[in-house]
Amino acid sequence: MKKLINNPEDFVRESLEGMAAAHADLIKINFDPTFIHRLDAPKSGKVAIISGGGSGHEPMHAGFVGMGMLDAACPGQIFTSPTPDQMLAAAQAVDGGAGVIYIVKNYSGDVMNFEMATELAHSEGIRVLNILIDDDVAVRDIYTQGRRGVGTTVLAEKICGAAAERGYSLQQVADLCRRVNLSGRSMGIALSSCTVPMRMSPTFALGAKEIEVGIGIHGEPGRKRMDLMPANELVSMLALSILEDSAYTRVVREWDMDNGKWFDCELVNQPFQRGDRILAFVNGMGGTPISELYIVYRKLAEICQNRGIQIVRNLIGSYITSLEMQGCSITLLKLDDEMIELWDAPVNTPTWRWGV
Amino acid sequence: MKKLINNPEDFVRESLEGMAAAHADLIKINFDPTFIHRLDAPKSGKVAIISGGGSGHEPMHAGFVGMGMLDAACPGQIFTSPTPDQMLAAAQAVDGGAGVIYIVKNYSGDVMNFEMATELAHSEGIRVLNILIDDDVAVRDIYTQGRRGVGTTVLAEKICGAAAERGYSLQQVADLCRRVNLSGRSMGIALSSCTVPMRMSPTFALGAKEIEVGIGIHGEPGRKRMDLMPANELVSMLALSILEDSAYTRVVREWDMDNGKWFDCELVNQPFQRGDRILAFVNGMGGTPISELYIVYRKLAEICQNRGIQIVRNLIGSYITSLEMQGCSITLLKLDDEMIELWDAPVNTPTWRWGV
Repeated sequence: MKKLINNPEDFVRESLEGMAAAHADLIKINFDPTFIHRLDAPKSGKVAIISGGGSGHEPMHAGFVGMGMLDAACPGQIFTSPTPDQMLAAAQAVDGGAGVIYIVKNYSGDVMNFEMATELAHSEGIRVLNILIDDDVAVRDIYTQGRRGVGTTVLAEKICGAAAERGYSLQQVADLCRRVNLSGRSMGIALSSCTVPMRMSPTFALGAKEIEVGIGIHGEPGRKRMDLMPANELVSMLALSILEDSAYTRVVREWDMDNGKWFDCELVNQPFQRGDRILAFVNGMGGTPISELYIVYRKLAEICQNRGIQIVRNLIGSYITSLEMQGCSITLLKLDDEMIELWDAPVNTPTWRWGV
Repeated sequence: MKKLINNPEDFVRESLEGMAAAHADLIKINFDPTFIHRLDAPKSGKVAIISGGGSGHEPMHAGFVGMGMLDAACPGQIFTSPTPDQMLAAAQAVDGGAGVIYIVKNYSGDVMNFEMATELAHSEGIRVLNILIDDDVAVRDIYTQGRRGVGTTVLAEKICGAAAERGYSLQQVADLCRRVNLSGRSMGIALSSCTVPMRMSPTFALGAKEIEVGIGIHGEPGRKRMDLMPANELVSMLALSILEDSAYTRVVREWDMDNGKWFDCELVNQPFQRGDRILAFVNGMGGTPISELYIVYRKLAEICQNRGIQIVRNLIGSYITSLEMQGCSITLLKLDDEMIELWDAPVNTPTWRWGV
């Protein structure tokens, strides 16, 4: 595997420096501890939204920092959770007095560190809430308790970012974020592995015709391995896994700001049904050209139409990636009027620039 | 090489159908002959801008059709020129009476077919001009007369699209397009080959550590093969090849509308110099993640700064690709106030959405 890098250990820092240099009108980077924040943060009276996770999934999250989306992003090393001190420092830097939401993808390391950061921020007097994204229908309880957090994260950050921009309260943004998570489901496939720069050997091995169905964004195992099939059959498999997923109930921990403690919260994803209006998100894993993603979208649109499910918004491109992995994921998000309006709201980040 | 496709012979059609389905609010596709056009074309009194070329370079050109950019795009089969009947039909469909500009990348097949289309459109009473993009400093006279047309095409389509939207005349848009071409230079490298779906074997073979410097967007040979080096050294090599390129003089054929014949036109690219304001475009070849492109941008910005060349705009992402090839190209475009204003103007296409 050949890469456009210098020293592997400098990959994350140099990539962030490049991003900050390219978008100095929008974002600024802080090192030691590392986080990227909006140039105009903190914004007084506005709820601040912070996300983060291992690097290697770019443009998520750093590319989503800016007006109408994230106030800060905390990148870890490649496929490695950021640390609580990064998350705390980011919260201190961008809290404008209205509180902070941490949007957390459900991976054991991320969950543990964001929970610790939540407690630290609380003890520093910051009003903070912590919302989990766990939308991957492929598997559960593999390396992570419950389902993993994938594509819905991107959509939650856009929608909640718009809500915060409009002056939603901390509790309102948290409720919305939870609702987005409960309305979204995802699944992906890998046609190739990715290669972590520090290791320079593939994370997993696939045969010349083999694919991994239900792949995780760090190369974690999915449901099964099988031979490559025509795109239409792969899309059917992913789409039906999502559309036919039954109600999914689990208990997650959320933060009780008033009493400074965690409590158990039972959450349920309701299944999709005929008549739903959805956002269809076809995501490239980093090494797949957009021409192939459109072939995926073509079949996905047909399947949804045949099931009486109406795609009213879509997003097609590489937004939550696994380095240069080839493959794609599909995320379907059930929308309501409020979410549609927030999806359409202006945004100005390194990755997205709408309405400005 | 594994791909998310069905039958290789359906690749282009299905990908276009997916794009049209995803962006039905912006574009519409016509088959037999194949072209993609703005939903609201023809626009009376507005110069229409048409480009085209082989498929496999997506999002260019179909992804650039819409308000503020192209009126139509004519895709050929993978890495194969579209035909004159496509180009003529596109012109007939989008000409709003103010005439049509064909923006043509300098490849023998494209040039021949667009010249034929120019003559056909002329004979159908359409006012038409034909502007060549030939910005690749890597090589000349390899498979193509003179220099190949690469990244500057993307920038020309954005800038000229904005100009046409503002009501520039046919001659004014053509003059601007020629000026953009004479202000831009590009060069790329490949870390891997690409694989054409109909062949399913790599277009060229690279060793495990080998790269091709000065690669063409169809896998044509560049300047040399060498071992992979750290990104900073590769970026220096590309950037200096561009920044130190001396005046480039050549004769191209342009169309004389009034007399219905071709004439020879001598054109000169002036070298970059200290004090220039530029747009720096770091382009991914399709299989390279954006994290690596930011590492490229980081070094490029440093080099430009050290030479007293000011990057006032930038573009980073995969816009002119070679299927799933890994690698990147750098395009530097000398800007003036007019070009900056047009670059910043609103655009609404499948790929770009600014200011709307």
